[in-house]
Amino acid sequence: MSEVYIAEQSQTFESGIRLDSGRILAPITLAYETYGTLNELKTNAILVEHAWTGDAHLAGKRNESETKPGWWDAIVGPGRLLDTDRYFVICSNVIGSCFGSTGPASINPKTGKRYNLAFPVVTIRDMVRAQKLLIDALGIERLLTVMGGSMGGMQALEWATQYPAAIASAIVLATTPRPSPQAISLNAVARWAIFNDPTWRKGEYKHNPKDGLALARGIGHITFLSDESMNAKFGRRFSAKDGQFDFFGQFEVERYLNYNGYNFVDRFDANSFLYLAKSLDLYDVAWGCESMAEAFSPVQAPIQFYAFSSDWLYPPYQTEEMVTCLKELGKKAEYHLIKSAYGHDSFLLEHETFAPLVRNFLERV
Amino acid sequence: MSEVYIAEQSQTFESGIRLDSGRILAPITLAYETYGTLNELKTNAILVEHAWTGDAHLAGKRNESETKPGWWDAIVGPGRLLDTDRYFVICSNVIGSCFGSTGPASINPKTGKRYNLAFPVVTIRDMVRAQKLLIDALGIERLLTVMGGSMGGMQALEWATQYPAAIASAIVLATTPRPSPQAISLNAVARWAIFNDPTWRKGEYKHNPKDGLALARGIGHITFLSDESMNAKFGRRFSAKDGQFDFFGQFEVERYLNYNGYNFVDRFDANSFLYLAKSLDLYDVAWGCESMAEAFSPVQAPIQFYAFSSDWLYPPYQTEEMVTCLKELGKKAEYHLIKSAYGHDSFLLEHETFAPLVRNFLERV
Repeated sequence: MSEVYIAEQSQTFESGIRLDSGRILAPITLAYETYGTLNELKTNAILVEHAWTGDAHLAGKRNESETKPGWWDAIVGPGRLLDTDRYFVICSNVIGSCFGSTGPASINPKTGKRYNLAFPVVTIRDMVRAQKLLIDALGIERLLTVMGGSMGGMQALEWATQYPAAIASAIVLATTPRPSPQAISLNAVARWAIFNDPTWRKGEYKHNPKDGLALARGIGHITFLSDESMNAKFGRRFSAKDGQFDFFGQFEVERYLNYNGYNFVDRFDANSFLYLAKSLDLYDVAWGCESMAEAFSPVQAPIQFYAFSSDWLYPPYQTEEMVTCLKELGKKAEYHLIKSAYGHDSFLLEHETFAPLVRNFLERV
Repeated sequence: MSEVYIAEQSQTFESGIRLDSGRILAPITLAYETYGTLNELKTNAILVEHAWTGDAHLAGKRNESETKPGWWDAIVGPGRLLDTDRYFVICSNVIGSCFGSTGPASINPKTGKRYNLAFPVVTIRDMVRAQKLLIDALGIERLLTVMGGSMGGMQALEWATQYPAAIASAIVLATTPRPSPQAISLNAVARWAIFNDPTWRKGEYKHNPKDGLALARGIGHITFLSDESMNAKFGRRFSAKDGQFDFFGQFEVERYLNYNGYNFVDRFDANSFLYLAKSLDLYDVAWGCESMAEAFSPVQAPIQFYAFSSDWLYPPYQTEEMVTCLKELGKKAEYHLIKSAYGHDSFLLEHETFAPLVRNFLERV
């Protein structure tokens, strides 16, 4: 796709949706991108779901000034895993985020000002509710598959349980039926870091609260990596610029987290970060049900699950719990535990490992 | 020891010590407590080393207003594991801390003001150097054992490698030959939380920077527990006071970290927290050596090691590396992997499990 630029698209749904909280969010705008061509029968559509700080820009470039392609470019394009010569691939920014879809930085029509903390708490299910409007608007009755990692995997699970007839399959990577208290704690201290920043002003900032948001990202970053990958990448090397006995001297790993944390401030809205952290923590595949089995009972589509050995944020045993439950219900669930050192981020990095397995799965559905 | 109160003692060493950094720290005051009676031959002394935010108050009560006994009271006292009818037990607050020993909140004799960031970076080895002055002053040539968990275990290792003839044995719990980059990262974000607090003022505060220090403690607290223990204690319960869709609503585990974080502010100095975090991160048992084998080659005393299955801060494999190395050198190293759900904090909680093993070890040395 060397000279073909990807168009940024969006649709607005004036009547919005009723959220899990009971509140109405209206209007809703969804930013999205598409790759490839929808066939006449509209049977070749694949929805890819992004993670916490991701966006709709899945693959390719949107203009000549972009130096990097989209976040999952490695698997989307002609001849790639999600082959755009065959499939029509859609990726939409979630509500609550800050890349064109309605979120806390959007204008609240009631006040003419940014929502900020007047934005309602949204759940993963609410994100998928909004996406369903988009898929309906595109005239797609049934997605060939819905695929995502981490928060993206949670969305795929919601499609499978809430709109079982609307998907022919689902591919769920590095996710969890519900974050553990340890995962919640790590998000909690990240939130706390932003709350502590006096420039956050309870969400009423002009400029992103940089120290708090950078630290919050630093905390998150630790959970995306692993002891093993940090050892391989940084070991215990001390920054060459600092003396070991300098009070402010840093280890390389510390400098890396710092540097990346402050870079993050330029691209992600602090309030969106907080709202999405909340969505993640509240996530429970069995939300509103008595049990996981009850939640999974409507599932029709086969689901392929991937977990990664060094993922300590959403460890493999959590995925295995879902696979076992689905199998006990007689559903089609396929599970692959991938040995990887990259921690939670493996789902973005181990595509060469899982691509043949996904390809095989897609051929079967 | 119902009516016997423990005396707070201290000694000042005017000429101080030369630190690993090459700087002189003088004078040095060490606060300490002792339990039991030193025998005539001075052969029944046991030195217990405290962890990061611990202090010299190991057991018993110091006055009638104390509601809780010292931090390892469960194992120190007449008839207990460290039987004060038999042993003379010593615990000293480390330099860099804030409970009576010289640290950043002490008065700098050169300026007549608190050191704050003028305090030198100290290493675990420096802490033990200072303790050696105290043990010498008490006239003890050889400690029967030196025992500690976490940062306390690092100190025990320093005794074994730096003063091999001065100890007859060592007991090392939940420690590491060198913190991994993941452990460093978690301390790094805790430091960052304090640096972000505008009331910290580069260490020149009148009152502890509470929001930053509470958050730093919250981060640390997560590393002391485990996914398993958090699940057992809190699960995913949401605070009964909050609605699930309240922006500031908290999970129980979140509230707990918050509550304990702010309590910590009343008892621990922020600068000491930073200096000791640094000491921990810099720790390397092979500091100044080419290898761990070289570092361990002077060891004379048998060492008993304990690691805990759910300790993800200093995971068992790190202890095992030391045990293997010592055994290869023909040294006496004994290893116990204790199955426990309590994470890093297990060393404070699993005393009923390890007490018989320690007792047996002490009988043999």
